[in-house]
Amino acid sequence: MRSIISSFRILRPNYEVSQEVGLQWISRAHAYAKYLDSSSFVNKKTIFDLNILMENITNRFACKPDKIANRGTFIADYLHNNWEEMQFFDLKKNTAGSQLQERMSFFSEVTNQVFNKFYSDIDEAPQHIIHVTCTGYVSPSAAQLIVANKNWGKSTKVTHAYHMGCYAAFPALRIAQGFLLQDKQLLNSNEKSSQNRVDIVHTELSTLHFNPSLQDPSQFVVQSLFGDGLIYYSLYDKNSFLYSNCLKGLEIIVNHEEIISNSSDAMSWEIGSNSFQMTLSGKVPSMIAENIENFIGKMFSFTDVSFEEVKNNCIFAIHPGGPKIIQHIKDILSLSNESVQLSESILKMYGNMSSATLPHVWDSILNSDIEKGALVVSLAFGPGLTISGSIMRIV
Amino acid sequence: MRSIISSFRILRPNYEVSQEVGLQWISRAHAYAKYLDSSSFVNKKTIFDLNILMENITNRFACKPDKIANRGTFIADYLHNNWEEMQFFDLKKNTAGSQLQERMSFFSEVTNQVFNKFYSDIDEAPQHIIHVTCTGYVSPSAAQLIVANKNWGKSTKVTHAYHMGCYAAFPALRIAQGFLLQDKQLLNSNEKSSQNRVDIVHTELSTLHFNPSLQDPSQFVVQSLFGDGLIYYSLYDKNSFLYSNCLKGLEIIVNHEEIISNSSDAMSWEIGSNSFQMTLSGKVPSMIAENIENFIGKMFSFTDVSFEEVKNNCIFAIHPGGPKIIQHIKDILSLSNESVQLSESILKMYGNMSSATLPHVWDSILNSDIEKGALVVSLAFGPGLTISGSIMRIV
Repeated sequence: MRSIISSFRILRPNYEVSQEVGLQWISRAHAYAKYLDSSSFVNKKTIFDLNILMENITNRFACKPDKIANRGTFIADYLHNNWEEMQFFDLKKNTAGSQLQERMSFFSEVTNQVFNKFYSDIDEAPQHIIHVTCTGYVSPSAAQLIVANKNWGKSTKVTHAYHMGCYAAFPALRIAQGFLLQDKQLLNSNEKSSQNRVDIVHTELSTLHFNPSLQDPSQFVVQSLFGDGLIYYSLYDKNSFLYSNCLKGLEIIVNHEEIISNSSDAMSWEIGSNSFQMTLSGKVPSMIAENIENFIGKMFSFTDVSFEEVKNNCIFAIHPGGPKIIQHIKDILSLSNESVQLSESILKMYGNMSSATLPHVWDSILNSDIEKGALVVSLAFGPGLTISGSIMRIV
Repeated sequence: MRSIISSFRILRPNYEVSQEVGLQWISRAHAYAKYLDSSSFVNKKTIFDLNILMENITNRFACKPDKIANRGTFIADYLHNNWEEMQFFDLKKNTAGSQLQERMSFFSEVTNQVFNKFYSDIDEAPQHIIHVTCTGYVSPSAAQLIVANKNWGKSTKVTHAYHMGCYAAFPALRIAQGFLLQDKQLLNSNEKSSQNRVDIVHTELSTLHFNPSLQDPSQFVVQSLFGDGLIYYSLYDKNSFLYSNCLKGLEIIVNHEEIISNSSDAMSWEIGSNSFQMTLSGKVPSMIAENIENFIGKMFSFTDVSFEEVKNNCIFAIHPGGPKIIQHIKDILSLSNESVQLSESILKMYGNMSSATLPHVWDSILNSDIEKGALVVSLAFGPGLTISGSIMRIV
């Protein structure tokens, strides 16, 4: 049984920050944190010198406005430089920013609002809600609370797909596909004709984990990439999709995942005392490069066509870990500019929204004039190193 | 297609602490934390007075040795009272104990060792490993690392089932059941006859989150209940089970879950800056009591027998949130002492091991002389409030 994703809903965070403003904020925050952390040094630099130093580092390592024009955030702190008035980044108190507990409370508050908005006009209970995030863990979660508040507790099961990084849409989809199969058996055996639907909701508050005390160059890369992202979609079985009033959807043909051996130190996502923290090695692009062709070959081995046959008619949804990843994969696989254009524009408009990014690309594919029947090849990467991907068809 | 769990493997933590020693440690830690936190008060109590006060509170609220005789831990701190020599509880530095980052590093280190031991003699790759925990989140996880180290990255997918509290074995099982169904389709279509197996591994390091600065009476309940628990098992489809050399297994007939409305404030599991933190209201037992009969009725509506018909021949695996829960459910459902005895003995031997507890009970059922054909009714509870459960049959 093949299943189909559709019914995308996107919410934008409260604030949009242009990359120019964002990069200036990053360099100022690092300069001020460095200034405060070095307050007892004899050869202490002035804040003026540190601002220039950090601007240079930012210019060298951060993602530029030609690739990311804008990022969304729920945190008003990023709109100004009055450190002492900030909710999370009153750096005089702590150059790492607020403690994790405060950030998690904020995550809880915001995601509850987000779920309330997503579900405000949805009256039919899904069989399942899968809540996907790697940026905040609170239980009862926003997914559990919406189910309780809607009185859906007897019909809707909540599953947390947490801490699986940027590629988490794929484990969420394979979990959802399994639920549909089980529920279909159950629905058949009970001879009901009700809708077979699993909702997937991503709430990534990536900008919540900024930490100005982390000053390794790789942190300037990470901190200039991520934006908040919130997206809802549903997975239907074929029958339910026909009755869903959706005009278009993405039928999942293959959902595949691999872990590359000897790559475990290339990327990590850990919980610190103040923020969740990413480490990222410069080896990642080459490791992906070495493995991507085999990975795609493996995915296509589950279909009745070869990649080379259909490549020129495929659309590529590539998770933009950074802007270089898309370019890199485009070069290795000899892809056309057009085939990766929607991945690039989502990155440009919103930044890397962690696991919410690819669903944004999928939504933009369904909203484009790309015709039904076209294949969509999706790819994402995360700690492990994990390569995850899918082949879908627009239906 | 019904699936079967079997191949249980249990690892015990490095240290076993008798409840007498454990309770004394808790009261001493609280007394010393209180002493340090009140150091500027005028009417400061002596450490001697505080020891007596905290012993009284512990005696009043904590779980006694007649219900929990012993709990396991990986933390040597619990074996002595020399605060300044402790790894996590050098309370003079911080009465909350170590920062979360140190605890998460320890979690990572220990769970890697645990996975290495579980998998030391397993040569056949499963299709999936589902890693279940609510006590530590690190990526690459121990599950991802074992897959990378075993060179299983092209055949084994890793899924994290994190932050779902004590009932997480049930979402893990429904995820696993869905994977088996999907893989069966794939195996059929590829006409292979290989094993269809999903491994589920729980690593709960509950004792890692002790926090002596939290002194609400409910914290004395929580802190006297939890022990570390580590368990591995596999889910097979029927054919694979026959070829697995397992003598006995539990066939899953129903796997059900509900969220009770208006109960979201009764229990929570949150991430603090020093430790993960549980809140627990006194309303929980009565909320469970009000809903448990309907819940079991709903589970049995998916079978062809009624609960009342078969009740006297069922074994009950009840997650012992606390010892009162088992007693409470026994009373409401008029169950025999024998039918809940294995749940009580797991609690007594090891304490509440969060999501790892029920799998320990299942293992003890398979190791008992209870005959094949008997039904096993399992129940667990967590934030939401979520009630989760299953009906299985010994095969």
